[in-house]
Amino acid sequence: MKQILVKKDILKNNNSIADENRILLNEKKIFTMNLLGSPGAGKTSVLEQIIENMKDDVNMSVIEGDLYTTKDAQRIENKGIDVIQVNTGGACHLDAAMIKEAMDSIDIDNLDFLVIENVGNLVCPASYDLSEDIKVTVMSITEGNDKPLKYPSMFQRSQVIILNKIDILEFTNFNMDEFYNDIRSLNKEAKVFEVSCRTKEGVTQLCDYLRNLINLKRGN
Amino acid sequence: MKQILVKKDILKNNNSIADENRILLNEKKIFTMNLLGSPGAGKTSVLEQIIENMKDDVNMSVIEGDLYTTKDAQRIENKGIDVIQVNTGGACHLDAAMIKEAMDSIDIDNLDFLVIENVGNLVCPASYDLSEDIKVTVMSITEGNDKPLKYPSMFQRSQVIILNKIDILEFTNFNMDEFYNDIRSLNKEAKVFEVSCRTKEGVTQLCDYLRNLINLKRGN
Repeated sequence: MKQILVKKDILKNNNSIADENRILLNEKKIFTMNLLGSPGAGKTSVLEQIIENMKDDVNMSVIEGDLYTTKDAQRIENKGIDVIQVNTGGACHLDAAMIKEAMDSIDIDNLDFLVIENVGNLVCPASYDLSEDIKVTVMSITEGNDKPLKYPSMFQRSQVIILNKIDILEFTNFNMDEFYNDIRSLNKEAKVFEVSCRTKEGVTQLCDYLRNLINLKRGN
Repeated sequence: MKQILVKKDILKNNNSIADENRILLNEKKIFTMNLLGSPGAGKTSVLEQIIENMKDDVNMSVIEGDLYTTKDAQRIENKGIDVIQVNTGGACHLDAAMIKEAMDSIDIDNLDFLVIENVGNLVCPASYDLSEDIKVTVMSITEGNDKPLKYPSMFQRSQVIILNKIDILEFTNFNMDEFYNDIRSLNKEAKVFEVSCRTKEGVTQLCDYLRNLINLKRGN
């Protein structure tokens, strides 16, 4: 695991740096996913499931954003996947300069799928272009169905929404009809997957969907 | 319910404005609580429980921070409590200038307890002094026990930590020993309450603790 400590002077010019990164990622046909959500929504757990499903046939690497720790990166490394840790030193989101620096440590000539797990935060990361092909927001049942309308930017900008911890739906007062109505009022096009990382419900459907996008970008 | 739309030019000089607010709050002996936590941790649900417990004998008002909506403020207003809605227009935290403006709409001559429910975010709001007597962070069991070390500032700066949704502990892999060890490594003094807003477990203990602080400030 490589660890990068971010300095303040590189936290600028996000969009132009994102454009540079995008040119390289497109040239190498690397499908890139920006994985977003609140602390505890289950981003890393979902990523572990994706890795289990794909590691035998997809060349993937992970960039792990975290304020200070390497906890999530260690979990990903335990799955046998190359991971670059980016510690933001307290900053509440990843930016394109951090991704550019992390990409220098990745073997992009042999990569099909780059996952960027962002800092846990349902507000700030929505505004930062990380050259991703898709933004995927993980939201857990236990957060309550009012969250899409309360934090609309993230849900408006996501191509995929993962409704996680679906296995404990019955122990909550989550209203599924309101959730879907609210999501559709914000974002008619988003694909929604109901997933449980404990029971594996929905994992195959999610991975099939992502694998198809990876293959499309690769030109297969 | 009064609603305030925040303009960008007031988002500065936080500490000096917080100091001004603090002089007024201390002069009026108003105990002030900054209520913090991730989206979905259960801040509003905990606040509803506090209101139920205290509304007959404590004069309280609530300032509700939210990006755009009035959803939480409506929940509080339904409990019969005066509430001021502050919409940050997308900003990820409340600041002292927003509180100052909100305080102009509150009858502070007849107030014992001011609750400020911050924007759901475990990162940014930790840095903003809102003249509070205590920061109270709500974290739910379902977020996972690794969150204190991953988002340390919030837990280091809180005098009270509420571990919410304790009723669904058995359906999660939350490790209580690790949680308490991590909390103690960050913050030896913080008071921790295990609470369920569904079963009411721990609510009375939490409210007794807060009521004592309110009375101490009032001089009773």
